[in-house]
Amino acid sequence: MAEPKPEEIMANFEELNLLESEFEDVELELIRKTEALHAPLYKKRAELAAKIPHFWALVLEQSPPELDNFFQPSDSNIFAECLKTINVSRFEMDDPKGSPRSFTIEFEFSENKYFDNTVLAKKFWHRKSTDGWQGHVSEPVQINWRKGQDLTGGLTDAAYKLSQAKKKLASSGKKDVKETTLPEYKALASKIEESEEASNSFFAWFAFVASYRWVSAEESEKAHKIEAEQKEKMKRGEKVDQDEEEPTDADEQDYQETEVFPQGDEVAALIADEMWPSAIKYYKHAHEADDEDFSEIDEDFDEENDQSEDEVDIRGLVGKGRNSKFNDSPPSKKQRKF
Amino acid sequence: MAEPKPEEIMANFEELNLLESEFEDVELELIRKTEALHAPLYKKRAELAAKIPHFWALVLEQSPPELDNFFQPSDSNIFAECLKTINVSRFEMDDPKGSPRSFTIEFEFSENKYFDNTVLAKKFWHRKSTDGWQGHVSEPVQINWRKGQDLTGGLTDAAYKLSQAKKKLASSGKKDVKETTLPEYKALASKIEESEEASNSFFAWFAFVASYRWVSAEESEKAHKIEAEQKEKMKRGEKVDQDEEEPTDADEQDYQETEVFPQGDEVAALIADEMWPSAIKYYKHAHEADDEDFSEIDEDFDEENDQSEDEVDIRGLVGKGRNSKFNDSPPSKKQRKF
Repeated sequence: MAEPKPEEIMANFEELNLLESEFEDVELELIRKTEALHAPLYKKRAELAAKIPHFWALVLEQSPPELDNFFQPSDSNIFAECLKTINVSRFEMDDPKGSPRSFTIEFEFSENKYFDNTVLAKKFWHRKSTDGWQGHVSEPVQINWRKGQDLTGGLTDAAYKLSQAKKKLASSGKKDVKETTLPEYKALASKIEESEEASNSFFAWFAFVASYRWVSAEESEKAHKIEAEQKEKMKRGEKVDQDEEEPTDADEQDYQETEVFPQGDEVAALIADEMWPSAIKYYKHAHEADDEDFSEIDEDFDEENDQSEDEVDIRGLVGKGRNSKFNDSPPSKKQRKF
Repeated sequence: MAEPKPEEIMANFEELNLLESEFEDVELELIRKTEALHAPLYKKRAELAAKIPHFWALVLEQSPPELDNFFQPSDSNIFAECLKTINVSRFEMDDPKGSPRSFTIEFEFSENKYFDNTVLAKKFWHRKSTDGWQGHVSEPVQINWRKGQDLTGGLTDAAYKLSQAKKKLASSGKKDVKETTLPEYKALASKIEESEEASNSFFAWFAFVASYRWVSAEESEKAHKIEAEQKEKMKRGEKVDQDEEEPTDADEQDYQETEVFPQGDEVAALIADEMWPSAIKYYKHAHEADDEDFSEIDEDFDEENDQSEDEVDIRGLVGKGRNSKFNDSPPSKKQRKF
């Protein structure tokens, strides 16, 4: 094949970009179709799960390691004791300014000794920035921890306070005051510096804002508009000036300094896209794991128990339902691997 | 919540199984819809890719690490030198006895010094076994390696010979001759024992048969029929005897002893479900990687080069098309991570 000339390469590249945006349109269409087909099944599943004790705690326990790694033993205790339901909903499905990729993840809890919320609902907006990033952003959720029970060591409180202070600043109209000068900013940044990320409770995830930086609805709308105009130009074969704003490293830096849970968007995607549609499969795995070689599991478990004496034996929750009839599932090592 | 009685748990479990099969029906429906919506885009992409030198070699190079790890430097050389196209098609989309999950992965090559095939097409049938497994099985593809060029050290040849010998045995009607007694069986088993799996060429993947064991179309049809009958019974509220055959460990053992590429089905799924729909994205990453900090890449690359002096600088293939215009893509570390 003859090597193409630079202008040919350029033309091919613009065509690839156009084609990629057609793929993206199909993706969004497929999210809508998927949601429409799944909706009645999720409803049935919720009704059924409500009759099964610990259904969602067991689903979380059996979720893939990429997700499971974010749960500390003390998090699992809370799930086992008082998690009632999980629900994922897509709240901008038909909003022309929103995205079918936006979703809310809702955890419902019974009365408990840890916090006085009965619902912790975290919204993830899928947005585009004017400097070319796209992904999910969120706002810190306030968790009303009871005295001495805060698993995050004050991180969710500090993150929530900063978000409120930022909103107040924005509505005050004082454009010359930088967010980094807010006392709440400094308080959160130093709290994060003190804490060891690896031992973070999953509940710190409720404080997540953005892996890149906060992107507002207005900015996202503007970015979509610019993109749509460029696409139209490309379709007409006109020259496109890609006048994307250069990323402002300073902003990004500032956001990352106060990001409590840097992988929060990945965790959200794992919950919404992996765990949520496959919850029954994971629940059934809890029963199969129970039927497997017990000595092996017990050994693993003893080791884990050394870390926390308070730990609830979540696998024990399965025992009651244990029955060979349940085990209608494949013997393959492949399918075991979750 | 009161703990339910055993018979209630059982009833819930049967309902969960029924609901799970409804989810599965939706999945199949979604595969069909996805394919229908993607088909015209894949066609356009193929036309465009044909005009871009090394398009598919660059896509493979930029594929996610889970897949990229299976490519040895000598495999990448072949891709860079003579891979013309990749194509994935679903050949049982509307076959009532087949599955929309079945697919063919086809590699087209130009004339080359390694083998005399111009097309290597590998079929993956999605099947259910009567002992409860489901997944993809395949047949060894014959690669006509030129003298001294076989990257698999005879594995593909030996696997192909065994598959032919098995077919011959099956059609001979000699039911008392066990496959394990075939000389081709022993030849392949000892060849696998000799070889170090970790250094296997990707081309050994063409010899893949099954991660569990071979499942024939007849067995799969029978398994589907049994399942459908059980489902009908459950729907009518009748008692279901799950008379699944116990897995025959011996068979499984035999297949695994002669499996050249035990993760072959995972690799196939990564190609068909990840790389194939997102090829443009990976191709663009090749260009972005090129625009990134060069010193860093060069350093990495020098180290890699120590391993193989013959290695083609596949990133160098990008250089010709390098232009800041191409770089319309996000600055986020998140999105870089492929």
